[in-house]
Amino acid sequence: MKHLLYLLLLPILCAYTPVITPNGSSLPFTIAQDGAKEFHLIAQRVDQEFAPGLIAHCWGYNGSTPGPTIEAVEGDHVRIYVTNQLPEVTSVHWHGLLIPNGMDGVKGLTQPGIPPGETFLYEFTLKQSGTYMYHSHTDETIQQAMGLMGFFIIHPKHEEPHVDRDYAIFLQEWALTPGACTPDPTVMLDFNYFTFNGKIFPATDALLAQKGERVRLRFANLTMDNHPIHIHGYAFTVTANGGWRLPPAAQYQEGTVDVPVGTTRDVEFIADVSGDWALHCHKSHHTMNGMAHGLPNLLDIELKGVVQKLQKILPGVHIMGTHGMEHMSQMYENHPLPLPPNYFPPIGEPGQFGWINMGGMFTVVKVRNKLPPSGTDPGWYHNPPGTVAHPVSPPPSNY
Amino acid sequence: MKHLLYLLLLPILCAYTPVITPNGSSLPFTIAQDGAKEFHLIAQRVDQEFAPGLIAHCWGYNGSTPGPTIEAVEGDHVRIYVTNQLPEVTSVHWHGLLIPNGMDGVKGLTQPGIPPGETFLYEFTLKQSGTYMYHSHTDETIQQAMGLMGFFIIHPKHEEPHVDRDYAIFLQEWALTPGACTPDPTVMLDFNYFTFNGKIFPATDALLAQKGERVRLRFANLTMDNHPIHIHGYAFTVTANGGWRLPPAAQYQEGTVDVPVGTTRDVEFIADVSGDWALHCHKSHHTMNGMAHGLPNLLDIELKGVVQKLQKILPGVHIMGTHGMEHMSQMYENHPLPLPPNYFPPIGEPGQFGWINMGGMFTVVKVRNKLPPSGTDPGWYHNPPGTVAHPVSPPPSNY
Amino acid sequence: MKHLLYLLLLPILCAYTPVITPNGSSLPFTIAQDGAKEFHLIAQRVDQEFAPGLIAHCWGYNGSTPGPTIEAVEGDHVRIYVTNQLPEVTSVHWHGLLIPNGMDGVKGLTQPGIPPGETFLYEFTLKQSGTYMYHSHTDETIQQAMGLMGFFIIHPKHEEPHVDRDYAIFLQEWALTPGACTPDPTVMLDFNYFTFNGKIFPATDALLAQKGERVRLRFANLTMDNHPIHIHGYAFTVTANGGWRLPPAAQYQEGTVDVPVGTTRDVEFIADVSGDWALHCHKSHHTMNGMAHGLPNLLDIELKGVVQKLQKILPGVHIMGTHGMEHMSQMYENHPLPLPPNYFPPIGEPGQFGWINMGGMFTVVKVRNKLPPSGTDPGWYHNPPGTVAHPVSPPPSNY
Repeated sequence: MKHLLYLLLLPILCAYTPVITPNGSSLPFTIAQDGAKEFHLIAQRVDQEFAPGLIAHCWGYNGSTPGPTIEAVEGDHVRIYVTNQLPEVTSVHWHGLLIPNGMDGVKGLTQPGIPPGETFLYEFTLKQSGTYMYHSHTDETIQQAMGLMGFFIIHPKHEEPHVDRDYAIFLQEWALTPGACTPDPTVMLDFNYFTFNGKIFPATDALLAQKGERVRLRFANLTMDNHPIHIHGYAFTVTANGGWRLPPAAQYQEGTVDVPVGTTRDVEFIADVSGDWALHCHKSHHTMNGMAHGLPNLLDIELKGVVQKLQKILPGVHIMGTHGMEHMSQMYENHPLPLPPNYFPPIGEPGQFGWINMGGMFTVVKVRNKLPPSGTDPGWYHNPPGTVAHPVSPPPSNY
Repeated sequence: MKHLLYLLLLPILCAYTPVITPNGSSLPFTIAQDGAKEFHLIAQRVDQEFAPGLIAHCWGYNGSTPGPTIEAVEGDHVRIYVTNQLPEVTSVHWHGLLIPNGMDGVKGLTQPGIPPGETFLYEFTLKQSGTYMYHSHTDETIQQAMGLMGFFIIHPKHEEPHVDRDYAIFLQEWALTPGACTPDPTVMLDFNYFTFNGKIFPATDALLAQKGERVRLRFANLTMDNHPIHIHGYAFTVTANGGWRLPPAAQYQEGTVDVPVGTTRDVEFIADVSGDWALHCHKSHHTMNGMAHGLPNLLDIELKGVVQKLQKILPGVHIMGTHGMEHMSQMYENHPLPLPPNYFPPIGEPGQFGWINMGGMFTVVKVRNKLPPSGTDPGWYHNPPGTVAHPVSPPPSNY
Repeated sequence: MKHLLYLLLLPILCAYTPVITPNGSSLPFTIAQDGAKEFHLIAQRVDQEFAPGLIAHCWGYNGSTPGPTIEAVEGDHVRIYVTNQLPEVTSVHWHGLLIPNGMDGVKGLTQPGIPPGETFLYEFTLKQSGTYMYHSHTDETIQQAMGLMGFFIIHPKHEEPHVDRDYAIFLQEWALTPGACTPDPTVMLDFNYFTFNGKIFPATDALLAQKGERVRLRFANLTMDNHPIHIHGYAFTVTANGGWRLPPAAQYQEGTVDVPVGTTRDVEFIADVSGDWALHCHKSHHTMNGMAHGLPNLLDIELKGVVQKLQKILPGVHIMGTHGMEHMSQMYENHPLPLPPNYFPPIGEPGQFGWINMGGMFTVVKVRNKLPPSGTDPGWYHNPPGTVAHPVSPPPSNY
């Protein structure tokens, strides 16, 4: 109740533009008598729904992975209570923060582990601003693979430059065998789900912007791979690396920002062209869902009725396209296939021009002259007449 | 015929230094009555010869993968006809270009797919300059793994600084099991051929430069890996990321440029030292051809005649070197081994000092005081006397 | 003897702060009558002890991998004798150095290979300063996977800015099946040991600094992966890429530096906060030792006595934690498990707050008001009272 009040008062209390965590939220806080901001993180098992019908048994904070975004302001004194509801000890590292050694969260090195059932207090003053992270630093390979991580975003005392929309997207990778529910933390490379804030496309929220607004995107990466995040239709300016703002002369424009592991990147752009603009990791397998790798390769092989014969013996059997996978979306639309339990097929979702056959780390930046006042998704973009790629038949004679 | 004329007139018509696509070419265009440049891309099956004897059944544009380089000038109005001769729908994304949403090429999201047999028209004005790409944005994991990509290079209205040689190299990865002909698009990580413009060393064209010339290298990467491209004997200046020129104060020197996925890098250097300078990806497995991975490891094991015994039973059998693989080149030279069909062995080619046992993403930058006027490869470098590493025997007494 | 003398005189002879190679050393040199510095590298088999009880049969230089650090000064004329005691030909590439083509070390292309048993002379003048490398450029995939590499660090004529501590850390990856002794050079991706200067944590030397000192860290990467090196408690300034100092306006702060393959990075910071600060690769599997990947996943499964039953049949059997791996360290402490030969378990070492369950590319930066004059490790940090994360029970009532 008390939390709700602060949350409602947030826009008044704070001098900053609150961060939007698509498909997520910011962690509520209370203000203590001495003025300190007090947060409570609860490390616990969470059922993270990557997409409808696909639930992973992860470890997260306060009900989700990534955990809620911690937002504070440069100069704040913060107290963070961490309660461990996991089956093993844990600890939290405040990744990038300049704090006393004993608050650094490395189990064994700088503090004892937090035993299951107990609560530890972390307390420090924020001497900096930028995009940082919090994550487990106990049994790291396991606890990070299971999802113990979130954003720690510190607004500068004096916001500069002002941004109208400020989005934060956490990049994660998971190894979830079809039918399994628990991510496999012994997998180092062969992941099969790639999430933006714990969701795969088409379950990822669209990012909205009104024409002319300045938009910031913040990315954090705790996976095993660089993720090159590409925006369509725009070049953004890369403004910060790992939380630290680049000197103005070193800022540069790009259409893709390669986010290394263990760090964050901030980019900014003016949303000056309307449309539905794809935003995605450019490693093509990272925009697929639930793909198995190294399958028998039937591409461009003429099967001449083999599938039909197979289906007489194994009703419902289907094989990866011999002419690519595009037809699988249509097939799925017309005759939904019997799927393994806890699986989401690599088919995408229907758009205004047919199936958008993307998945994983993919979403859409929707820029409109005027957004619905409700803040809800405006639907698909209405293209001005004559501005969409279209058939010409026959092509000009000189070809 | 009409195309040929324009091609011959190109150096006169254009104010820019045309890009050289080693082992490839630029796409011809015609100029319409309204001044627009008209291009025609044909998405189709191509037999791409990675090296003599090794032909991959890929998908490309106009007969090759990568497809031909599109060259235009900032301010140009372009019309690009795309004909689909593939067995499934496709679409083309103009990666990095600032264009209307309906021309962006994301099937389902911004346009319907181009059905097999049909031609679509894309039309837009080029508002920028730099090194960009075009690639399929339909059934992306499959269509990119099969090779549907190419350079889209936009020259600035006023060239600055002038470069004498401007090379464009597209980085690609392929999974081609020995004996197989079609790349396996379900492979996410375990690739075995790594190409510069669709060729593996020793089939890659050398890059030529005359002493004192300013040389630009443009790299594009649509694979699943960062590729760190290393030049020998030089430091280059990194001048552009993803097409966007770095501000002068942010440009920097390096001997290796790490090219992330889904982006391009431009580097420039003055060719002021003669020689045969290696240029290659520095991931050592990416300069190998057709390697299988995770083999039984016989290195440094004394086999004491086991191979000879094996060969009595299995004539022609050979095993990976117990003393490394260097001897395989010599072995191959003296007694060519029976090879699997459609395979290129990891042996490199004979140079002036013995076998150059490199492959994959490797070529040679040949800098000479004077190049043959024909523009042909000048052969190996003639070192000034006394400038080559050489045997000393015995070494100085103090060791 | 002669070497020893020069080594002792080094701090007097040289105007620069010598580089510290943790767990390693710099290569001694002699000064010839003509003033040239003469070095002698011996390529040979080495038994590299990654950690106590884990010895890898590698190839290195002068007894270790990475080989000893070559240190010299801009303007020096150097002669480097390379003796080949390996079972196959080799050659040395001076990675990043601007030298005559014939000294570049690419076997077949710029020189003949150095046959086993012979010595070659490389000779050139150093025209630059910075962090470079030397490594084999013969049968590269094999010879680099076996360890033939080291630092080549050139101090500028006039040091600027002065650093008090200058550490050089070489990043390497190895595939060493449990029980095996020789790294498997056919492995492209699935490595299981990740070393700083040939050591895994807890065998990695701590990096020491006295409060207020300026510290430089130099990283070199000859693996198959980007390694994002993260420092706790600090932001460092990235000052050089691949040996080439960034222009001041392009230098930037970060808490993690992503070191690409085939290059080096220099970072600098002022050690102004005391503590035991973790420094590690942030790919979580790279701070594990000897992990197998893609194991059956028992995490969060309730085994209800199955292990005990198994142990009756297979005495000593243990399985990966069903509640994470943290308990394995304790288990190991209380009842050391029978381990496979030549294996180091992923358990870390005991710290002042319990087991530090890290491994691989991990070490500790120990910053103290006053270090022991002996230069030895000062032990664990003594935290000021009340500055360590601690239990609160019960947590404040508003939660």
